Amino acid sequence: MKKLDFNCDMGESYGAWTMGNDEAVMPYVTSVNIACGFHGGDAHIMRKTVANAIKHHVHIGAHPGLDDLPGFGRRPLPVSADQAYDLVVVQVGALAAVAKTQGVCLHHVKTHGALYNMAANNDALSHAIAQAVLDVDDSLVLYALANSRQAHIAQEMGLQVAHEVFADRSYQDDGTLTPRGTPGAIISDPRQAIGQLVTMLEQGHVIALSGKQVPIQADTLCIHGDQPGAAAFALEIHETLKRQGLL
Amino acid sequence: MKKLDFNCDMGESYGAWTMGNDEAVMPYVTSVNIACGFHGGDAHIMRKTVANAIKHHVHIGAHPGLDDLPGFGRRPLPVSADQAYDLVVVQVGALAAVAKTQGVCLHHVKTHGALYNMAANNDALSHAIAQAVLDVDDSLVLYALANSRQAHIAQEMGLQVAHEVFADRSYQDDGTLTPRGTPGAIISDPRQAIGQLVTMLEQGHVIALSGKQVPIQADTLCIHGDQPGAAAFALEIHETLKRQGLL
Amino acid sequence: MKKLDFNCDMGESYGAWTMGNDEAVMPYVTSVNIACGFHGGDAHIMRKTVANAIKHHVHIGAHPGLDDLPGFGRRPLPVSADQAYDLVVVQVGALAAVAKTQGVCLHHVKTHGALYNMAANNDALSHAIAQAVLDVDDSLVLYALANSRQAHIAQEMGLQVAHEVFADRSYQDDGTLTPRGTPGAIISDPRQAIGQLVTMLEQGHVIALSGKQVPIQADTLCIHGDQPGAAAFALEIHETLKRQGLL
Amino acid sequence: MKKLDFNCDMGESYGAWTMGNDEAVMPYVTSVNIACGFHGGDAHIMRKTVANAIKHHVHIGAHPGLDDLPGFGRRPLPVSADQAYDLVVVQVGALAAVAKTQGVCLHHVKTHGALYNMAANNDALSHAIAQAVLDVDDSLVLYALANSRQAHIAQEMGLQVAHEVFADRSYQDDGTLTPRGTPGAIISDPRQAIGQLVTMLEQGHVIALSGKQVPIQADTLCIHGDQPGAAAFALEIHETLKRQGLL
Repeated sequence: MKKLDFNCDMGESYGAWTMGNDEAVMPYVTSVNIACGFHGGDAHIMRKTVANAIKHHVHIGAHPGLDDLPGFGRRPLPVSADQAYDLVVVQVGALAAVAKTQGVCLHHVKTHGALYNMAANNDALSHAIAQAVLDVDDSLVLYALANSRQAHIAQEMGLQVAHEVFADRSYQDDGTLTPRGTPGAIISDPRQAIGQLVTMLEQGHVIALSGKQVPIQADTLCIHGDQPGAAAFALEIHETLKRQGLL
Repeated sequence: MKKLDFNCDMGESYGAWTMGNDEAVMPYVTSVNIACGFHGGDAHIMRKTVANAIKHHVHIGAHPGLDDLPGFGRRPLPVSADQAYDLVVVQVGALAAVAKTQGVCLHHVKTHGALYNMAANNDALSHAIAQAVLDVDDSLVLYALANSRQAHIAQEMGLQVAHEVFADRSYQDDGTLTPRGTPGAIISDPRQAIGQLVTMLEQGHVIALSGKQVPIQADTLCIHGDQPGAAAFALEIHETLKRQGLL
Repeated sequence: MKKLDFNCDMGESYGAWTMGNDEAVMPYVTSVNIACGFHGGDAHIMRKTVANAIKHHVHIGAHPGLDDLPGFGRRPLPVSADQAYDLVVVQVGALAAVAKTQGVCLHHVKTHGALYNMAANNDALSHAIAQAVLDVDDSLVLYALANSRQAHIAQEMGLQVAHEVFADRSYQDDGTLTPRGTPGAIISDPRQAIGQLVTMLEQGHVIALSGKQVPIQADTLCIHGDQPGAAAFALEIHETLKRQGLL
Repeated sequence: MKKLDFNCDMGESYGAWTMGNDEAVMPYVTSVNIACGFHGGDAHIMRKTVANAIKHHVHIGAHPGLDDLPGFGRRPLPVSADQAYDLVVVQVGALAAVAKTQGVCLHHVKTHGALYNMAANNDALSHAIAQAVLDVDDSLVLYALANSRQAHIAQEMGLQVAHEVFADRSYQDDGTLTPRGTPGAIISDPRQAIGQLVTMLEQGHVIALSGKQVPIQADTLCIHGDQPGAAAFALEIHETLKRQGLL
């Protein structure tokens, strides 16, 4: 049976400020997306986070974001395709160098925050980001929202794509996430969340909020490390999947 | 006869702000040091500057600086060897990725501003910077102040080093620059400046401020592109050296 | 006859980077909008710009912008009413303190870039900005786009408002500016620009792009100091208005 | 008997990053030093922190720092007297405006991190900072290191000065702090720390590391809110001083 990748954003501290629970969550995931200094992270934190990932034998990915430190890369800035391309190139390049100095290679790229959300359904941004990854290193995997335009476009362009799913978010009839703020968007019961995930993995579909059964390809699962209870939730998912031979 | 490399800092604009006269100076130099977004430059400017350098067939180098945008990397911050290592790795990596997407490789690294000045005579910083360059790409040339500890240490560590000299700065008996602010530090007469340079190239020494003849290895000449008259001075040096077969 | 105020953004340099032609334009204007360090400007530049304004006897205004240095405050970030309030309070307070240390008071507030544009037709932002100005110093004048919701709302809230017009921009039937990028948005002929301005002042209306005559209240004219020919254009407007007794 | 002021730095979070335990420590202190956006804090955090201070009836002070977000204002940048003046003016002005919009006035100013440390024994910086405070609002109290040049100079210039002492730091024969890193610099036993404080308050002296009895004026006590156990330590000091009628 196909194994699931289990990813978490890491290295999003900045200077004197700490974010997330990298140490606590790292043991349960199989890949990490490391901030590259634009929305969070800095040169020192990048080195430490790569070292920590190597210690835990997890896949290392770059997590490029918008050039918006005050907004932590979460504010949907107007960004042109060219700008998105440039942002991805320099951030992937920076982390790739850090990885190289520690004797490892990058495994994947996942865009952060508003750049992730905006690209999901924007063809021009999707194309630019995929091209940036191809141009920097065409062996990298792009983590993209399952069923999104970004996943589709990047695949067509020849990039390896991992479809990313969420356990604690509900889905719509088109197979994309119910937007935050909509009633029912968040699945707060851990059992229900894990149940949704197992269904995705074993049956290749998800039950949308409307009750409709929607096909979905679950290659990688995202967990948010900066939320309370993140480590406990990660542990629970980790153990459930291990038990069922899915991790 | 040995040819001189002729370098200039470039790509130090930032966002909406312009710095330097990159377009005007680029035709006269043989290599450029491109800012990597920490003291100046940003992802977009890095791409444009690399493209411009390719167009003019000049060598492309990374110009990593301190993480100090408000001070343009000129304020001598206390920086540990580890921090200097990290700063160099991520900045060289970022520019190397930009170069790669345009089909070229980096040629050299030159540290910027306060990082350049502090490293010149600080063994720990010199060691850390050289190690960073070796770890990212050991084929890169390090541009370092002629007769400095940094040049000496990097060479001992097996890095290719280009000894950098200045035409418009006077020298001390130990072969390093007379500090700015000291009377006689600046050579404002272009003929005298060019004369000093030709002596360095043809005879391998410089006449220090004291009158003493001091050996110096002139591999690369630095010109500051953000000063008034930079382009005219660059042109004059360019033509003089061309005429004498030194460029 | 009513006199026109003639304003220009100033103090938008940052650290080592210069923007605009403050020295050249300052003699021709009657008020300046000084950047407060968020989109441009810094503590040192704020002091120098206030001193320069005092020397030229022009009114001093705060020019608060978004917290977006990489985008120079021009990127339309999603900003809540509360965030707009906070941004205006701290930036006006900072410049007011600089003015106080030099023995003068602020005269007005004009929001910058995307904050100006977004507020123009957004009631919640307009309300928050007007409240911020009232709470910091209710004697300040708000410069707002003529015929905008912002001008209307601020007036209703009891704030003094100066309706701002542009000589080199065409207008639409609702009395607001033709968006940049639309054909005919920019009036590049200086005579036509000055003609439009004089019509506004003498007759209280503007001829919209459609040919329709639209009422407009021209209290203050904005000129952009960072464009080529800004100083010459400022001089021409200055002399024309002086001659006609409008300045 | 004279009462002690008990202060803590607050509002040093930034954007998406949290720092300190403001909520937990606020109930035990009598005054707070609020970051002004240069080394930490932002417009939104400034408003929230002022509101929280008002709720707890504590004195509100501005906590201006160096323009060094990546270094959290802790890196001893070379800063000229003019630059220090400008930094203090704009930051105090910004926080004063926030306070005004909530119906209160600032009570004091305490410089942050490297600016505090550098000013302590630098006459030019001390003079510039005191002048900045006098020029912005001469009713403000300056919190300065007890027995420092800064305290002495500011008092001579007519500013109200509160001499700041530390319970958990040892002192030298000249009445200033033993530098961090020196053996014996930190007093880790809470009882010893509180004992030192009570001696200062009741007897007007401190026993230096050498055993020498050194006069000291203890007007305000600083506690660091970002350290583990800060709230518990604050509570213990609070209760001890209350019991002895010193708070």
